[in-house]
Amino acid sequence: MKTNNKAIVLVSGGLDSATTLAMAINDGYECYALSFNYHQRNIAELNAAAKIATAFKVKQHKILDLDLTQIGGSALTDDNINVPEQASEGIPVTYVPARNTIFLSFALAYAEVTGACNIFLGINAVDYSGYPDCRPEYIKSFEKMAQLATKAGVEGQNITIHTPLINLSKAEIINTGTRLEVDYSMTVSCYQADEYGRACGLCDSCRFRKEGFLSAGVLDPTHYKDTRQ
Amino acid sequence: MKTNNKAIVLVSGGLDSATTLAMAINDGYECYALSFNYHQRNIAELNAAAKIATAFKVKQHKILDLDLTQIGGSALTDDNINVPEQASEGIPVTYVPARNTIFLSFALAYAEVTGACNIFLGINAVDYSGYPDCRPEYIKSFEKMAQLATKAGVEGQNITIHTPLINLSKAEIINTGTRLEVDYSMTVSCYQADEYGRACGLCDSCRFRKEGFLSAGVLDPTHYKDTRQ
Repeated sequence: MKTNNKAIVLVSGGLDSATTLAMAINDGYECYALSFNYHQRNIAELNAAAKIATAFKVKQHKILDLDLTQIGGSALTDDNINVPEQASEGIPVTYVPARNTIFLSFALAYAEVTGACNIFLGINAVDYSGYPDCRPEYIKSFEKMAQLATKAGVEGQNITIHTPLINLSKAEIINTGTRLEVDYSMTVSCYQADEYGRACGLCDSCRFRKEGFLSAGVLDPTHYKDTRQ
Repeated sequence: MKTNNKAIVLVSGGLDSATTLAMAINDGYECYALSFNYHQRNIAELNAAAKIATAFKVKQHKILDLDLTQIGGSALTDDNINVPEQASEGIPVTYVPARNTIFLSFALAYAEVTGACNIFLGINAVDYSGYPDCRPEYIKSFEKMAQLATKAGVEGQNITIHTPLINLSKAEIINTGTRLEVDYSMTVSCYQADEYGRACGLCDSCRFRKEGFLSAGVLDPTHYKDTRQ
């Protein structure tokens, strides 16, 4: 099976994907960043993604327009469902139906066009255990399917989905990124950030992030809407 | 494992997917049609898809806007690659990178939102043996992944990808559809049909279709640009 050092890195604008990109570059991969304008509430994420891609001097940054509100079914893509401010039982309402499968499918198409054998995805099974498509068994299964789905796979190229954060805690992710000089003030994690990228400090994503900086012992550089946070 | 009779049916506007929809309805499935405006050259297909969905009285018909020209890499989505008028060796240039994976991913999302356990896809491994994502082993692999990817799968619903045409010849597909009273004059298969849905009669897709009607012994109702065909 043939392989190469070209990689598609999914860059959302958040803390996790910025760290993933830094790790891929540090490991010697030639990186192509891929972001989605999926008409998410948090459009500030996309501005952050562009800043991060530029800061890391990626080979190319592609932003795909992908209106997931056409499907709906999640607090992140459907205006009729509110983003909760407290953790909930089971699969959260912020889960977007088949989102990672859709994102990885486009990454796979982009990999075919660029000739990349690698896809990096900054998912995490620790903090987001409620999301079915953040589990290692799901990723392994996608990888097998990708091998059968593509021209590259059929022609003997080995397609690998890398998820270097999957078993790390938020604090470990932040410590890794800090060692690799990621400027976390550029990243936006909040589900309902304002147009300036300022975070609410209350949603699931903000709480994980805040606790992460605290337990990593790293100063939290997040811009909050309410400066008392 | 739980299941139900709700089904997402991918309807392209072509002969194969129209037959697949007829088969799903005949088998008692409650059908939701899904089409993609993927900025393909053949926009006439979408008009055909709408007609077919209406004719079969589907529960809902969703047309997703999905600009695959943003990815490129195929004669069908990249203006710099020409559609060939002769069969070629290996994987054809009309192969769209990871197309079926992208389409099935959206079908999976739509299945989650509607609560459907079934997805119908009119792919065929006989005529399109050059496409990696038209093979049974690919479909089985996607099905396994879908089970792990989704809330429904995790909660015990059995997700099935049905490909009733996969081992049929074009003639068998046409005979099946004719028995189920599919009006094939509504369908468009040509890769470069004009805005009225008239076919070139020369591309791979036209040739398979023409030969199919011939060997099925069914009158070819296709509208051709050149009426001598």
